[in-house]
Amino acid sequence: MARPSLAGRRLYLVCDAAFDRVEEALHGGVDIVQLRDRALPDRELLAHARRLATLAHDHDALFVVNDRVDIALLARADGVHVGQDDLHPRELRRLCGENLLIGLSTHNREQIEHADEVDYLSVGPVHETPTKPGRASVGHDLIRYAAAHADLPWFAIGGIGPETAPAVAAAGATRFAVVRAITQARQPRGIAEQLRRMLAR
Amino acid sequence: MARPSLAGRRLYLVCDAAFDRVEEALHGGVDIVQLRDRALPDRELLAHARRLATLAHDHDALFVVNDRVDIALLARADGVHVGQDDLHPRELRRLCGENLLIGLSTHNREQIEHADEVDYLSVGPVHETPTKPGRASVGHDLIRYAAAHADLPWFAIGGIGPETAPAVAAAGATRFAVVRAITQARQPRGIAEQLRRMLAR
Repeated sequence: MARPSLAGRRLYLVCDAAFDRVEEALHGGVDIVQLRDRALPDRELLAHARRLATLAHDHDALFVVNDRVDIALLARADGVHVGQDDLHPRELRRLCGENLLIGLSTHNREQIEHADEVDYLSVGPVHETPTKPGRASVGHDLIRYAAAHADLPWFAIGGIGPETAPAVAAAGATRFAVVRAITQARQPRGIAEQLRRMLAR
Repeated sequence: MARPSLAGRRLYLVCDAAFDRVEEALHGGVDIVQLRDRALPDRELLAHARRLATLAHDHDALFVVNDRVDIALLARADGVHVGQDDLHPRELRRLCGENLLIGLSTHNREQIEHADEVDYLSVGPVHETPTKPGRASVGHDLIRYAAAHADLPWFAIGGIGPETAPAVAAAGATRFAVVRAITQARQPRGIAEQLRRMLAR
C-alpha cells in the first residue's frame, strides 16, 4: 500500500457521526471525507469510522480521521488530520508509518511556510464559523497568500458554501473543504455538485 | 523489551497534569502512575506524559496512559488503561504490540469474568466518587467477588483513602488505585505511606 494521491481531489467534506447522508454527498462529487466527532466514545467512533471508510472507498473517495491516529490506523483510513495543538506531524508519522496521509490545519502565513512534514494543508477559516468558535477569520488575504506560496496541496475552509465559494475561488483556492454547507443542506448532493463545478473550471 | 511485570506493585495513582507532587507520592510508595487528563490538548498531553514517564521510571515505578494508546506509545509508557466504552483491548493490542500492559476498568461480575485479553483490572468504584459522576458504587460485594474469582491482578478503586481502605482490604483487596486521596492530600507522601503499609500486611 502506498500513500494515496491527492491529485484531482478537490472537494473535502468534514462531518460528524450524526451526518447520515454521506453517500449523497459522495454522489455529488465529494472526494475526501473526514470524520470529526469529539463527543462519541472511542469504541463507537471506531465503528463509525469503519463504516465511513467502506462507504468512501466504495465511491473512490479518500477517508480521513480527525485528530486520532489510533482510530485512523484501526479503521484503515487513508489519512489523519490534525490541528496546531494536536500531536506534531513528526510524532504522527512515527506511529502511522509511510502509508497514511497527514493533513494540518493552518491559520497564518508562518504555519503555511513551516508545514513541511505533512501531505496537505487546510487554510482558514476564510469566514468565521460556529464550527470553530473563537477562531478569527483569515479572510481572502491568506487564501491569496496560500495560492502564491503553498508548496503542498491545500484546501480553503471556513464558511464556504455556494454563495461564498466564488470569491474564495477568485482569491486562488482550487480546493474546498466544507462542513455545514453540506451537512446542513437539504440536498447535500446538489450542493456538492454546485461546489464541484466551481472547482472544475 | 518485555511487557512489565505487575508483581509486587500494589499502589496505583491516577492523576491529571495539574498534580505536580507525583515525586512525593512515589517516595511514599506509589509504584504505578497513570496520567488521565481529557482537558489538555494532545501536544501538551504528550509532553506531560513524557515527563511523568521519566519521573516514574527514575523511581522504578510504571507509567500508564489513560485511554490513548498513541500517547502511550510515543511517551514510552508501560501501559494503557481503558474503560468499557473505549477502544476494545483486542484493537489496542493490534496497535501497541506485545510490550505494553493493557488495563481495563470493570464495574460488575460479568466484566470481571470476561476480561481475558488484558493484563490487569480495576474494580470499582467501591464508593461513589466525584471523579466518575453518575457511576453507581459497587460496594464491598464486588471486591469480595473479585478476590474470589479474578484471574488477573486487580486494583480496587473509588473513594479509597486512609479511612476507607481498611474495610476494602478486609473485603479482599490487595491492591489499591487512588485519585483524590493522594492528589488532594496536603502530604501525598504520608498518605501513600499509610496506604502502602495496609497493603504490605
